[in-house]
Amino acid sequence: KINSERLWDSLMEMAQIGPGIAGGNNRQTVTDEDGEARHLFQHWCTQAGGTMAVDEMGTMFARFEGTDPDALPVYVGSHLDTQPTGGKYDGVLGVLAGLEIVRTMRDLGIKTRRPIVVTNWTNEEGTRFAPAMLASGVFAGVLERDWAYALTDAQGKRFGDELERIGWKGTEPVGARKMHSFFELHIEQGPILEAEGKQVGVVTHGQGLRWIECTVTGKGQHTGSTPMYLRRNAGRGLARVTELVHEIAMKHQPNAVGAIGQIDVFPNSRNVIPEKVVFTIDFRSHVLETLDAMVAEFNARAPGICADIGVKFASRIVGQFDPPAFDETLLARIRDAATQLGYSHMDIVSGAGHDACWINRLYPTAMIMCPCVDGLSHNEAEEIFPEWAEAGANVLLHAVLETAEV
Amino acid sequence: KINSERLWDSLMEMAQIGPGIAGGNNRQTVTDEDGEARHLFQHWCTQAGGTMAVDEMGTMFARFEGTDPDALPVYVGSHLDTQPTGGKYDGVLGVLAGLEIVRTMRDLGIKTRRPIVVTNWTNEEGTRFAPAMLASGVFAGVLERDWAYALTDAQGKRFGDELERIGWKGTEPVGARKMHSFFELHIEQGPILEAEGKQVGVVTHGQGLRWIECTVTGKGQHTGSTPMYLRRNAGRGLARVTELVHEIAMKHQPNAVGAIGQIDVFPNSRNVIPEKVVFTIDFRSHVLETLDAMVAEFNARAPGICADIGVKFASRIVGQFDPPAFDETLLARIRDAATQLGYSHMDIVSGAGHDACWINRLYPTAMIMCPCVDGLSHNEAEEIFPEWAEAGANVLLHAVLETAEV
Ligand SMILES: NC(=O)NCCC(=O)O
Ligand SMILES: NC(=O)NCCC(=O)O
Repeated sequence: KINSERLWDSLMEMAQIGPGIAGGNNRQTVTDEDGEARHLFQHWCTQAGGTMAVDEMGTMFARFEGTDPDALPVYVGSHLDTQPTGGKYDGVLGVLAGLEIVRTMRDLGIKTRRPIVVTNWTNEEGTRFAPAMLASGVFAGVLERDWAYALTDAQGKRFGDELERIGWKGTEPVGARKMHSFFELHIEQGPILEAEGKQVGVVTHGQGLRWIECTVTGKGQHTGSTPMYLRRNAGRGLARVTELVHEIAMKHQPNAVGAIGQIDVFPNSRNVIPEKVVFTIDFRSHVLETLDAMVAEFNARAPGICADIGVKFASRIVGQFDPPAFDETLLARIRDAATQLGYSHMDIVSGAGHDACWINRLYPTAMIMCPCVDGLSHNEAEEIFPEWAEAGANVLLHAVLETAEV
Repeated sequence: KINSERLWDSLMEMAQIGPGIAGGNNRQTVTDEDGEARHLFQHWCTQAGGTMAVDEMGTMFARFEGTDPDALPVYVGSHLDTQPTGGKYDGVLGVLAGLEIVRTMRDLGIKTRRPIVVTNWTNEEGTRFAPAMLASGVFAGVLERDWAYALTDAQGKRFGDELERIGWKGTEPVGARKMHSFFELHIEQGPILEAEGKQVGVVTHGQGLRWIECTVTGKGQHTGSTPMYLRRNAGRGLARVTELVHEIAMKHQPNAVGAIGQIDVFPNSRNVIPEKVVFTIDFRSHVLETLDAMVAEFNARAPGICADIGVKFASRIVGQFDPPAFDETLLARIRDAATQLGYSHMDIVSGAGHDACWINRLYPTAMIMCPCVDGLSHNEAEEIFPEWAEAGANVLLHAVLETAEV
């Protein structure tokens, strides 16, 4: 069994880096804080006997040798970057639980045949630079490295430049390394495990996602002196699209969700009718046909409800993936581990996207989930109990040991 | 008659300072660009024989002596600050036409009994620091100097500190000086004069205004893993309030307008349901009862439409004034001047707020308007024709000469 206290202490120590304003974290990707987190993680890995490699996307791979250096390694990990108002566990738990299992193996003198590689994927969150799961997407060959380098944040800074600036642009070609398999432990970020009273979630599937960036264009005019009949208010376009997104998602409940998280208004002045509003819709479903139907309905209706009020609508996809189904063999190992360890568990669908979803396209992949309080995530108040982290990490340990061949 | 070419050249020279991104200006109040504009205006005033005084709110008063130094002066002016995506004429025309009339008087050797003071009021636009017409509001005793100093912009910078930083915090107590009367020439910022084919608008009244800053609070949650039934989406609160504002304004057409110009979403991340949205409603009417009725209906309905979807609504007034009626004697002089000069003219209500609205509470005040193309203002594409500026400035000249006693 893992050392639950050490795992928790590491989580708390990592949370010191890039503190938020309400007890959580603001450690966005390729910021100075992200750089600092990486140094701490590297330090811990080296201490535990690992050797670190960094690829051109900044993804960190800490390798812990097994008995057979030629065997394909088992990978475990997640991400250390957070939302701007993020929690202490989203992503971090998966990385530090990976570290904890190699620390435990060292403590107990356990050696597997296959090497184990603990991984920290760059820019999983996708807030500063869309899309999410950027580095794992490039690793999986779905996204292009140079395209990723050219992505800009709200200040116009380029992802590639920022990665270089913080000193974590590595030299290893992205996707060059081969994996035997990949395991990711993650907090659920939803309410199901807690509501069902289960300690462990066995993630059989994930939701597919479409991020649709919309631009509604009206006319920037004086809010006082422009008669109502002359107005082309882009803000009303946003209002109508907001309700359309909600209506479409509700129609497919409980198999779909939809909302708008990011909104930028131009020129954003109290006495100027919005000229332009740019916002991103997040539609998800674990049923591909449902996801497609939602997007089709949206595309069919959005331009019209905007045209009705004299504003123009345009959109483009800025992030997308189809619903993944994880590897049955690995899932069976996770279930067995949970059963043997005496943890209550259930199969679950991941509501969020994860690096595991991309890696799943290349190598056998599976995910383990632990509950989180009130299902709250992407919020500084995100919380889990040490026992939940412990259960998840123990299941991870046993599934990895089985897979890496003790 | 004024020198139309000189007036236009000065307008174009001023527009070089703080250029926008689409042919207009971004010369927001108490920025470096605002400071530069003030230096140029001071230079021009000194050249034309004036002496400059600056009050504690940074308002500039360029005095041009008449024959009787003890007579109360006639004031003319407007503002040099612009919207973030503003035009070249909004405010600037009124200041530089004031300068042009004293230049013309100097050219023609005309002396009035009363001094003439050309004025540049600080922060008329209210974008960077709400409310609008800040310095004239303090001058009129409606707002307090120290309260104004403490206002903060989106970056948390204080108005008073910024005024000092750019070097234009004067020492003259605000409101200490007395006026005989105040004239403001301004572009209409609406479509009426152009549509009616009139060269000059005689502004009999203005609209009253209420700026209501609203905060809708929901819960910041994961857009993917939070089931629809658990969501408290503050963005939907914004959507519903946007439509409510529009509905209320439409009900009182054509005597009212309403819109939301400024919207800030928190944490503004693509995969976080908005936790909080802060936005400002701009309601206006030239009928006080209508304005009051709109606000009352809004206050009665907004909390409920938010509560219906599980989000909280709170609001506070961040700017307000009642509909002003300008001085009949001065208005008659403006009408007479327009008639004598052979300009077509009509009475008009100002849709926008102006410094004249505040000064009107203390001293006889009147406004003259010139048309603007398509009624477009608070937009970089704001445009007027030199002949329109000329007609307005000539009417201003004659009304001022009559009032200042040639
Ligand atoms: N796990 C997680 O929150 N990932 C960010 C990408 C997403 O929005 O699902
Ligand atoms: N004239 C003008 O645009 N003033 C700004 C204040 C307002 O919004 O009316």
